[in-house]
Amino acid sequence: MIVQRSLHLRRLMASVGPQLVVLLLYDLLVTYLFVGRGWSRLGQDNLPLPLLGTAVALIVTLRNNAAYARWWEGRMLWGQIVNDSRSFVRGLIAMTDDVALQIRLTRHQVAYTQALRAHLLRQPPWPDIERLLPPDTVARVRTAANVPLALQADIADRLGVARRAGLVDAISMAALNASLSALASAQGGLERIKNTPLPRQYNQFPRLFTQVFCVLLPLGMVRDLRLFTPLGSALVGFMFLALDRVGVELEDPFEGTLHDVPMQAITRAIEVDLHQMIGQTSNPPVIETRDGVLN
Amino acid sequence: MIVQRSLHLRRLMASVGPQLVVLLLYDLLVTYLFVGRGWSRLGQDNLPLPLLGTAVALIVTLRNNAAYARWWEGRMLWGQIVNDSRSFVRGLIAMTDDVALQIRLTRHQVAYTQALRAHLLRQPPWPDIERLLPPDTVARVRTAANVPLALQADIADRLGVARRAGLVDAISMAALNASLSALASAQGGLERIKNTPLPRQYNQFPRLFTQVFCVLLPLGMVRDLRLFTPLGSALVGFMFLALDRVGVELEDPFEGTLHDVPMQAITRAIEVDLHQMIGQTSNPPVIETRDGVLN
Amino acid sequence: MIVQRSLHLRRLMASVGPQLVVLLLYDLLVTYLFVGRGWSRLGQDNLPLPLLGTAVALIVTLRNNAAYARWWEGRMLWGQIVNDSRSFVRGLIAMTDDVALQIRLTRHQVAYTQALRAHLLRQPPWPDIERLLPPDTVARVRTAANVPLALQADIADRLGVARRAGLVDAISMAALNASLSALASAQGGLERIKNTPLPRQYNQFPRLFTQVFCVLLPLGMVRDLRLFTPLGSALVGFMFLALDRVGVELEDPFEGTLHDVPMQAITRAIEVDLHQMIGQTSNPPVIETRDGVLN
Amino acid sequence: MIVQRSLHLRRLMASVGPQLVVLLLYDLLVTYLFVGRGWSRLGQDNLPLPLLGTAVALIVTLRNNAAYARWWEGRMLWGQIVNDSRSFVRGLIAMTDDVALQIRLTRHQVAYTQALRAHLLRQPPWPDIERLLPPDTVARVRTAANVPLALQADIADRLGVARRAGLVDAISMAALNASLSALASAQGGLERIKNTPLPRQYNQFPRLFTQVFCVLLPLGMVRDLRLFTPLGSALVGFMFLALDRVGVELEDPFEGTLHDVPMQAITRAIEVDLHQMIGQTSNPPVIETRDGVLN
Amino acid sequence: MIVQRSLHLRRLMASVGPQLVVLLLYDLLVTYLFVGRGWSRLGQDNLPLPLLGTAVALIVTLRNNAAYARWWEGRMLWGQIVNDSRSFVRGLIAMTDDVALQIRLTRHQVAYTQALRAHLLRQPPWPDIERLLPPDTVARVRTAANVPLALQADIADRLGVARRAGLVDAISMAALNASLSALASAQGGLERIKNTPLPRQYNQFPRLFTQVFCVLLPLGMVRDLRLFTPLGSALVGFMFLALDRVGVELEDPFEGTLHDVPMQAITRAIEVDLHQMIGQTSNPPVIETRDGVLN
Repeated sequence: MIVQRSLHLRRLMASVGPQLVVLLLYDLLVTYLFVGRGWSRLGQDNLPLPLLGTAVALIVTLRNNAAYARWWEGRMLWGQIVNDSRSFVRGLIAMTDDVALQIRLTRHQVAYTQALRAHLLRQPPWPDIERLLPPDTVARVRTAANVPLALQADIADRLGVARRAGLVDAISMAALNASLSALASAQGGLERIKNTPLPRQYNQFPRLFTQVFCVLLPLGMVRDLRLFTPLGSALVGFMFLALDRVGVELEDPFEGTLHDVPMQAITRAIEVDLHQMIGQTSNPPVIETRDGVLN
Repeated sequence: MIVQRSLHLRRLMASVGPQLVVLLLYDLLVTYLFVGRGWSRLGQDNLPLPLLGTAVALIVTLRNNAAYARWWEGRMLWGQIVNDSRSFVRGLIAMTDDVALQIRLTRHQVAYTQALRAHLLRQPPWPDIERLLPPDTVARVRTAANVPLALQADIADRLGVARRAGLVDAISMAALNASLSALASAQGGLERIKNTPLPRQYNQFPRLFTQVFCVLLPLGMVRDLRLFTPLGSALVGFMFLALDRVGVELEDPFEGTLHDVPMQAITRAIEVDLHQMIGQTSNPPVIETRDGVLN
Repeated sequence: MIVQRSLHLRRLMASVGPQLVVLLLYDLLVTYLFVGRGWSRLGQDNLPLPLLGTAVALIVTLRNNAAYARWWEGRMLWGQIVNDSRSFVRGLIAMTDDVALQIRLTRHQVAYTQALRAHLLRQPPWPDIERLLPPDTVARVRTAANVPLALQADIADRLGVARRAGLVDAISMAALNASLSALASAQGGLERIKNTPLPRQYNQFPRLFTQVFCVLLPLGMVRDLRLFTPLGSALVGFMFLALDRVGVELEDPFEGTLHDVPMQAITRAIEVDLHQMIGQTSNPPVIETRDGVLN
Repeated sequence: MIVQRSLHLRRLMASVGPQLVVLLLYDLLVTYLFVGRGWSRLGQDNLPLPLLGTAVALIVTLRNNAAYARWWEGRMLWGQIVNDSRSFVRGLIAMTDDVALQIRLTRHQVAYTQALRAHLLRQPPWPDIERLLPPDTVARVRTAANVPLALQADIADRLGVARRAGLVDAISMAALNASLSALASAQGGLERIKNTPLPRQYNQFPRLFTQVFCVLLPLGMVRDLRLFTPLGSALVGFMFLALDRVGVELEDPFEGTLHDVPMQAITRAIEVDLHQMIGQTSNPPVIETRDGVLN
Repeated sequence: MIVQRSLHLRRLMASVGPQLVVLLLYDLLVTYLFVGRGWSRLGQDNLPLPLLGTAVALIVTLRNNAAYARWWEGRMLWGQIVNDSRSFVRGLIAMTDDVALQIRLTRHQVAYTQALRAHLLRQPPWPDIERLLPPDTVARVRTAANVPLALQADIADRLGVARRAGLVDAISMAALNASLSALASAQGGLERIKNTPLPRQYNQFPRLFTQVFCVLLPLGMVRDLRLFTPLGSALVGFMFLALDRVGVELEDPFEGTLHDVPMQAITRAIEVDLHQMIGQTSNPPVIETRDGVLN
């Protein structure tokens, strides 16, 4: 996620640049053919460009709205993972007296969030899990298709054991279980966003329409603007290309790009917070912004 | 659900193509009559096309927003079925000690989700149900009008028996019941989307207006664009037809088309996940994307 | 609620037709006066019609959004009545052993939903209630201003008696009470939509503006379109009138019109579902679509 | 809240009229100077009026959306007060056997809603509170800064006493407490809307822009429309002024104006409903619509 | 947060003024060069300004919608802090008999909200915390990275001690824990808004596009408007610049600016309310509006 406030032209160009260069070359060609070679048929100043532009802007806007909603929902769901992880550990503190159980399940919960991040990125979660959990637990979840789900089932299992041993009463058990259900809901929501792309028409039509619009732009402008055509056409085209990029960059928030929801920073912050709550202080450092980007 | 990222022209054409061919033929006819035959009355360059286009785009956009919201809500409700199924089984693991009961109710819950999928598609659910449940349970629900509802009532029945036998305490019972209520809510939401189409005006007016607009397009353009009319008119018409299609394809997400919410993949994933949670590993394989489509 | 997919011209005309006829006659008059009588002052081709049209379309769209949201919320709240009725009965099945109590409260709950429908339509609920409940209960609620509320209070009363008799434990009581609270919330939402119309400005301004716009349309077009004016003006006017109707028809979903949320079908389905859950099979038939409309 | 369906011209004029008169006089002046005195510099037919109009309409629409959302949220929160008041009393009926306690707390709850209404209107709540509660309770809350909050704390206090006396068990206590928490949430939401106006820019820019637009309108039209200018300009101006009024009237729903959420009718209906639930029938009459307005 | 209703020109100018002056100087330069010096190439009256303006207005509107949603969500989350703080204290009153515990935890809760405000503003929270809590508690949380989180863990700790001492029963404990979880959720939401800026494209593109549009404005108008160019261009430019400012000012609601959510007033009101509930009356005064601004 980009967090710096100032406009970063290099980054903007990296995203819109290539298409803009192609557009500019095409505009120059049209202008050369019309002005230099006198191909007057190229100039079609009756093309309904404003109508087309409005229609393209509307569909791109609609898609961008949906893409932003996905991105923000992804961020909110990670926020719920943060909240419910804290509430789970706070519940452990208030409802059990067994400090060893508190510590063990807190580490478990930290491992769960790291595994969830890796799960969404389709990466192996083992480095973090091996760092946080005892070898036998790691061995038990190693073959699971859905590692965070297996870790949560393992937490439920241990709570069941603790309940039967009288370390947790039934009512506290229900409250802790409610936290786990809330975590499961947030996990399901994250998997939903990961596995369900925007309807492909929302992805492809805006791009297609924007490109068609850019092809028509110099044809509709060259009779009036003549030598200024490349400038005017590229300017309008740039706006529409940029508008299209905004949505494309946001629609998939868990792909490991620099537009991602900053999952690494979030899971590290969870680790620091939860360990603080149970009095553990030797933690890895929080993730800092680097070059204006937070991962 | 289409998941591939690249534009699939064949599929796009299959959806918009027929209307586009009719539009093109009509545009050619208008052009021929105006340019070739000199029917100058056909050229009406004062038609308020931009105004009409804006109005059509607005109503289509409004409908598409509503259609996308329905589709995404359908997906979210299936996501809740996933979450609450997991939470129900996790609750069983933590709150009961009877492994046989855990396995039986987990299989029951898997059957419930398969029956719900079939219920929404108006298909018989029996193959999956017979695979998962013992014959006497199948016999009991066979005459039900609403099979998933009957299966859930059966789960509640078995939980009641277990509670009376002392296998589940009252508080755990309340927690498990809360999961069942959440599942019932999601099921009700899915049935609501299935049974309540978009208001028909939202379906019919956009199509009607788009078609009227396409009829007027060449009449309003032919005086200016002359021989380029078919190109210009078909291009604009294509955008509006495509815009209309986007909404039509999304508005009913449980019809067995390739734009559906991928219920087969979701219910299979539930089966794999739940069985993993109770340690069962012999499962049917997860559903893979085929030809860019996930069912 | 109209459920048929095909465009029903008769129905469309019944809704927009009268205004369209008036508009057409007016357009013909303007054309006759301008073309036939030479009243050239009528032709004002500098009227800012596109600007007006955009403003009218925006306000109508805004209203339609709000009207659709009301209609859909009404449908969702009825969906919650469905869900929570099922959850209430499922809770009864799992949490009480007294079959007579189960049957009695299930019939009570069915009567509650029928009374709620009648309450929203301002109709007397007695036929359904007398069919479902014993005479003494009917007598007790007959003087109530809010019959469904009185029926729910009666359910709570009976549950209180059952709790004191030891038929329902305190925890089950709390769970059943939560279902009743959810039903009360949905009922309150339905009453809110019924009793709170859209702000009257949202209802009246779109209509007023659309009509003013239709009056100006032929004046602004007649100089250019001449004899085609009635066609062009009526076409544009039709779109705006139809757009206005969409919202008007949806904004009040409980008025007994054919655009209503299909409360009769929903309450009947609840009756069939709940009776199925407790094993009762002699039910009235589900409501079928008739002439493309579901009531 | 205005509830009548027909357009009430007197009321519309009371709201938009004064500005419209000023606008009309200004339009007449411009026309007189341009047509009668020949000040041709006044006619600027190249002003970008459509662009300005679109921008103004967009920002006004955005504001109106936000204002409507505030108004509707205010109505929904009052609806939650209704629902949770009913659920609280229904919980009392089902969970306590002490009829005196039921009656006392029900009257308390009615007083709470009346105090909340007065609190939002910044009015003294004492007439209703003295009518409903015993003098010692009135004396205890008289110095409170937030009277409804003090009344709810008093309810909690009495429930605590009842719990210690064994009249309410711990689980019922938790359920009743949940209703009180829901009421506290709705109260907090109502206070939030009351205390947090729309961002002032949302209030001031639409008005400023609409006025600037109205000043420019006749200048941009007078060259084309000449003597028709006052009509055309006033018509367009009227639409934009009316559009602006819609939002202004809705943005603050608890100010005692005729556009308010009808708090008096709602609180009275709560009183009738709650007293019906506990069998009390001597109630003040429900509030009726008067002159098309419900307060 | 600005609360005064009248337009405050000085404040408006402070926000849009500098850019407006630059724009006006540029407009004057263009006019001078075109009219005075005869640089006729500067006048490009075929620039697609309406199309550009619509596109710019759409993207700015989209961003402003998102920014307003962030601001309002920030306000709602603070509202939840208010509600849940009250519900927590009300729960203490109803569920414990230990007045000393009630007072201690209420002060704790007040300190929590003050620490949360300081945490969001990245300010040291110690003055308020030292005023409200005993020195040993202050010492314990002084090294915490997340002070409000540490304070809440401390509350949970004390509740756990009270539960073990028999001062709070298990069911009351669960209800109080639910309030703490709701507070944790709201805190997490506030941190999410603070730590996750709007996607930078949403911040930078509107500004960039608005500025480009303002550069083009006089070029596209000077041929028609001539000496009136600075007026017309500045007017249109002012609207777009102001539109952009609205969003920029709202998008980050916890930065200590005068557009902030008024956290100081809210936390002070919480302090007064909570102390009123437990009968403490010596409080600091509520925060008043000063110069039309509430902090």
